[in-house]
Amino acid sequence: MSVIEYMHTLGQQARAAAAALAQTPTAQKNAALVAMAEAMDAARPALIAANAKDLAAAEANGLDAAMLDRLRITDAGIDAMMEGLRQVADLADPVGEITDMSYRPSGIQIGKMRVPLGVVGIIYESRPNVTIDAASLCLKSGNAAILRGGSEASHSNQAIAACVTAGLQQAGLPEYAVQVVNTTDREAVGQLISMPEYVDVIVPRGGKGLIERISKDARVPVIKHLDGNCHVYLDDEADVTKAINISINAKTRRYGVCNAMETLLVSASRAAELLPEIAQHLQEFEVELRVCEQANALLGKSSSAGVIAASEDDWYAEYLAPILAVKVVADMQDAINHINKYGSHHTDAIVTENYTKARQFMSAVDSSSVMVNASTGFADGFEYGLGAEIGISTDKIHARGPVGLQGLTSQKYVVFGDGHTRP
Amino acid sequence: MSVIEYMHTLGQQARAAAAALAQTPTAQKNAALVAMAEAMDAARPALIAANAKDLAAAEANGLDAAMLDRLRITDAGIDAMMEGLRQVADLADPVGEITDMSYRPSGIQIGKMRVPLGVVGIIYESRPNVTIDAASLCLKSGNAAILRGGSEASHSNQAIAACVTAGLQQAGLPEYAVQVVNTTDREAVGQLISMPEYVDVIVPRGGKGLIERISKDARVPVIKHLDGNCHVYLDDEADVTKAINISINAKTRRYGVCNAMETLLVSASRAAELLPEIAQHLQEFEVELRVCEQANALLGKSSSAGVIAASEDDWYAEYLAPILAVKVVADMQDAINHINKYGSHHTDAIVTENYTKARQFMSAVDSSSVMVNASTGFADGFEYGLGAEIGISTDKIHARGPVGLQGLTSQKYVVFGDGHTRP
Repeated sequence: MSVIEYMHTLGQQARAAAAALAQTPTAQKNAALVAMAEAMDAARPALIAANAKDLAAAEANGLDAAMLDRLRITDAGIDAMMEGLRQVADLADPVGEITDMSYRPSGIQIGKMRVPLGVVGIIYESRPNVTIDAASLCLKSGNAAILRGGSEASHSNQAIAACVTAGLQQAGLPEYAVQVVNTTDREAVGQLISMPEYVDVIVPRGGKGLIERISKDARVPVIKHLDGNCHVYLDDEADVTKAINISINAKTRRYGVCNAMETLLVSASRAAELLPEIAQHLQEFEVELRVCEQANALLGKSSSAGVIAASEDDWYAEYLAPILAVKVVADMQDAINHINKYGSHHTDAIVTENYTKARQFMSAVDSSSVMVNASTGFADGFEYGLGAEIGISTDKIHARGPVGLQGLTSQKYVVFGDGHTRP
Repeated sequence: MSVIEYMHTLGQQARAAAAALAQTPTAQKNAALVAMAEAMDAARPALIAANAKDLAAAEANGLDAAMLDRLRITDAGIDAMMEGLRQVADLADPVGEITDMSYRPSGIQIGKMRVPLGVVGIIYESRPNVTIDAASLCLKSGNAAILRGGSEASHSNQAIAACVTAGLQQAGLPEYAVQVVNTTDREAVGQLISMPEYVDVIVPRGGKGLIERISKDARVPVIKHLDGNCHVYLDDEADVTKAINISINAKTRRYGVCNAMETLLVSASRAAELLPEIAQHLQEFEVELRVCEQANALLGKSSSAGVIAASEDDWYAEYLAPILAVKVVADMQDAINHINKYGSHHTDAIVTENYTKARQFMSAVDSSSVMVNASTGFADGFEYGLGAEIGISTDKIHARGPVGLQGLTSQKYVVFGDGHTRP
């Protein structure tokens, strides 16, 4: 079978499974999720053996330590995947929820019912645990899933897929509800994103390059998460303690996450007071500062190392590293302009005590999350009460911000009448 | 300036206008809508003169009477457009609405704020009144609009655009908030759908061919309305009066609309009782019936003319005409399978008195509107209480069913803290 035929077969099977899944009771979906966790527990040796093959190949191919770390499945990693499955089982089922029911003057009663999207295609890179995240969220939201992981994790993903299939079968669900593409041929991705008859939406998980490539070529809607170039703006009416705590937390909580602050903006009237103290704290964390001219005048002398002049590229950068761009801005409007121009529309925060400016910032910043006096680190599905997330969308269409179960559903109108006809 | 340069200029201007519009107070948007209506009232002779040029050219090009009718602007048509503007001014402003505000265990308070999409591109065919519908809905929802009408209506659309611009200026809004493409070069459409940096979403309005072409080529998300192949299923527990009234109404209320019934499905156990009477009523309306074998056995002899055998194509057809496909089905599951296979996921109804089957049909039919004991003719933005609509989406992503102001917006997360940092 050619790759095209193979992918079409997966698509047809997914479409058929999706019709069944859309009608599957909550308890049956939950039973499958719990059975998957049990299957993983029983398959620990097989999972670790499969992963060892991937690791050996990756080492032979010279992958760096960080990549190997992302690829590795440990016993603790299996525990985490099992816990993830159980957490998704515990989440409320979004399917069938009816909202906004009301009577219209004609006498009909109308509401909106939440329904699955149908078939979701997920394309991801090295982390094998994405296989479980994606499978569980798609299943719980009533969608069939076609998963295409990185070729470097193919043995691991197939071993995880076996546990997923076992769980589906044990709960009496169609085995094609979750399918893991079993070829490493790159043409499989090209096909997956070009079958609108079988796939309703694509969610790419990975680097910006992967996502841009997929978005450009896809003939199916794509829920995108490009990058997280998050800002904190310290307003001239910022509380000192909040300004310092939030700046430190947003940068240093974790470096490699999309909700980490990458640029700190400081109002000119407060720069001399706030920047040296914040810089001192960040230098204790060995964070390198890339600063504008004004900030350099304030910091350049006091801190010999770790402060260098920023270039235009720094304002666009998502470092995902202990590096921070710092810019002194004239006022809040200047900060808003900077964020909307250079930012990635992910998460941006203001620190201020001023009511009117808080309202203006909230309204004017065009990002998926806008915060007042809180760390950008809160931008996360669990912190928002959505449960596990399949990604954080920087798109505006369909889903924005953390995408959990609800982002994998749509709404249809339901109309109840009593023989009503329209004049 | 080349067409590409011209479209890029429109895009840049729209992007700048969108930033301003997102922050524009409701009263100012409403003032612009009312001023547009007044400008149209004052420009009646100019509108009718411009339209006369289009009509003359269309007649010379041999357009048929129906096309000429769609193209014609009458005084009553101007009244209707003015009334439409005032109705949109009266609708609640969706922008800035905050919902789902709650405190999380961390202490942050989180909600969702409704925000404009940004720049909306609308591509449409001959009806010049779409220019006003689209301009008013985009403006009220805080979006900049780039409108590309049919070349056969270009003089009419430019004359309407002048009124729109006058209204914007009178209310102190950026004149580039609504731009009507002033070239009939087809390359303009190709550009409009390929500028994700300037255009956030495309809404095509027109025939299925236009929409399929645009969806295929677009590099920007498209809110699609393909076709309306709507079904009414008469269940074996249907009330006779409701079954007859709804069937007649759904077919004959208007023929050329997307919510008209195109296929009638009847449970085998009730076909002999219901079909002859419904056929008799429909024949009074001169509706041609394209029937399956079983229906033919019931109707073929009694009604000499207007009953012919259906082909496979009839089950897919959106006639938009006094034609109805009729099929006898074994039971409700057979009806659901038929609808999900042949339908266009627009609007489908069941007539039944059975509670359990009503619930099952509601859940299993994969359409943007699903109805019980009500005519498909209710599928409409006004009837649903959404106000004017820019189209009825048969997509699942982003917007499904009638797309009004809310469908032209997105939601961002807003987070309020008091210096909160994430552990």
